[in-house]
Amino acid sequence: MVSICDRVRYVETDMMGVVHHSNYFRWFEMGRVAWLRAAGVELWELMNANIIFPITHVECNYKESALYDDEIEICATMTAFTRAKMDFKYQIVRKKDGAVLAEGESRNVFTDSNGHITRLSGAFYDRINAYYLKEQAEEKH
Amino acid sequence: MVSICDRVRYVETDMMGVVHHSNYFRWFEMGRVAWLRAAGVELWELMNANIIFPITHVECNYKESALYDDEIEICATMTAFTRAKMDFKYQIVRKKDGAVLAEGESRNVFTDSNGHITRLSGAFYDRINAYYLKEQAEEKH
Amino acid sequence: MVSICDRVRYVETDMMGVVHHSNYFRWFEMGRVAWLRAAGVELWELMNANIIFPITHVECNYKESALYDDEIEICATMTAFTRAKMDFKYQIVRKKDGAVLAEGESRNVFTDSNGHITRLSGAFYDRINAYYLKEQAEEKH
Amino acid sequence: MVSICDRVRYVETDMMGVVHHSNYFRWFEMGRVAWLRAAGVELWELMNANIIFPITHVECNYKESALYDDEIEICATMTAFTRAKMDFKYQIVRKKDGAVLAEGESRNVFTDSNGHITRLSGAFYDRINAYYLKEQAEEKH
Repeated sequence: MVSICDRVRYVETDMMGVVHHSNYFRWFEMGRVAWLRAAGVELWELMNANIIFPITHVECNYKESALYDDEIEICATMTAFTRAKMDFKYQIVRKKDGAVLAEGESRNVFTDSNGHITRLSGAFYDRINAYYLKEQAEEKH
Repeated sequence: MVSICDRVRYVETDMMGVVHHSNYFRWFEMGRVAWLRAAGVELWELMNANIIFPITHVECNYKESALYDDEIEICATMTAFTRAKMDFKYQIVRKKDGAVLAEGESRNVFTDSNGHITRLSGAFYDRINAYYLKEQAEEKH
Repeated sequence: MVSICDRVRYVETDMMGVVHHSNYFRWFEMGRVAWLRAAGVELWELMNANIIFPITHVECNYKESALYDDEIEICATMTAFTRAKMDFKYQIVRKKDGAVLAEGESRNVFTDSNGHITRLSGAFYDRINAYYLKEQAEEKH
Repeated sequence: MVSICDRVRYVETDMMGVVHHSNYFRWFEMGRVAWLRAAGVELWELMNANIIFPITHVECNYKESALYDDEIEICATMTAFTRAKMDFKYQIVRKKDGAVLAEGESRNVFTDSNGHITRLSGAFYDRINAYYLKEQAEEKH
């Protein structure tokens, strides 16, 4: 599990006084980016190699509302990985009391720049897979 | 099914040149609002009656990317309704060729302003339920 | 002056219960796009011709707050045009009473894909300039 | 001058491959919030005291584009302060080379919850003014 911390921005709130639900997917994305960075892969590298990784599925279950100025922890864990796709699960945790505000999932597939499904090439695959296996081994303990 | 049309805004795109996936949930919301309006219920009325309707679940499956300036049709259909919750499903359709770009679902629950689950009161329930039953009857034909 | 109408989205509100001020620049952009379309120029065409048009200045004066569900009219008028830049001014008008909610300005410059200032080429220049002159002539009446 | 650091989010980019210009106003807001926090005033306190502080003017001059993943420093300095209004200026600095990407300004006024102009009360005024004077004294050195 890779986690990053952030603070709820004023602009992320809506007229109900809570964070608008669409923003959680932006936080999930930040968690996914942080996970890939921890694995040694920057989005820039993928894009420069003409590898596109569109989202094909996301979902989120909301338990409690994040509020303006809340400090949150965005936790990302890879749950499946092949040359064709990568799945993640996420938790958004309120730092002051550890409450899990939301949990979610995503799937990215790998395509070329024409949108055709492709298979992730050697170096990228190896780095991501190594980190995925390491994470899985750690979670078993 | 209630549908509204819109045009993809430039700001909704990301550096991949397609609409960022988080924006679909904003379109779903516009569809949900339009459905409730068709049923005779404005969000303002609910809020003025201290009825809050937080999202507890959303998901989206992405099939093709919406692009800048695409004309889209946002289609919302209620799939379940009780005094405690309302579920919707959505389709985002590209107008020029009828392609379904994405499909999704959502659940709202009804709470009071303290966040406690409540049961939707008479007039609101009746209007929404009447439209829901009408919609279901039409879909069977 | 070219105008388009829109309705304030729920997601555009913030916890003060009004539209967040950053959204007005998204509306200005929609107005600018509509103006250029009226002049016969689509952003796609410019991008396909490798003409980039970054914003170098924007500003907005806010008079009254737009609220959720308000129907608004986004009015865009070109105020200066050369081969190197285009300036616009904007008004956001609340439809139900004609109140001017905000007024703003923007400047775009034309660059090539390396970010170097360039000069707008023949056909694009001619179409935009023709519409600009037509608009100016009409405003004098 | 109060500054905070952040990293450009993927969702903040647009199809030109750069940060959409409207996002800078969200960064300015984060800088303004950080400045007020440094002065000992949280937005929550103002809101709980029924003090509203709508934006009446913002502007931004863009020099270079922020890119995805850029580490940026958001710098906020108060430039004028009375019981009726507060003005700030901002710089967005790219951390890796110190380049100033954008500079801007804002004005907030103080109103009551009915939108009527009010005058900032004792404790809030004193804390903000003390920090403003301290900042001005430091800048003179």
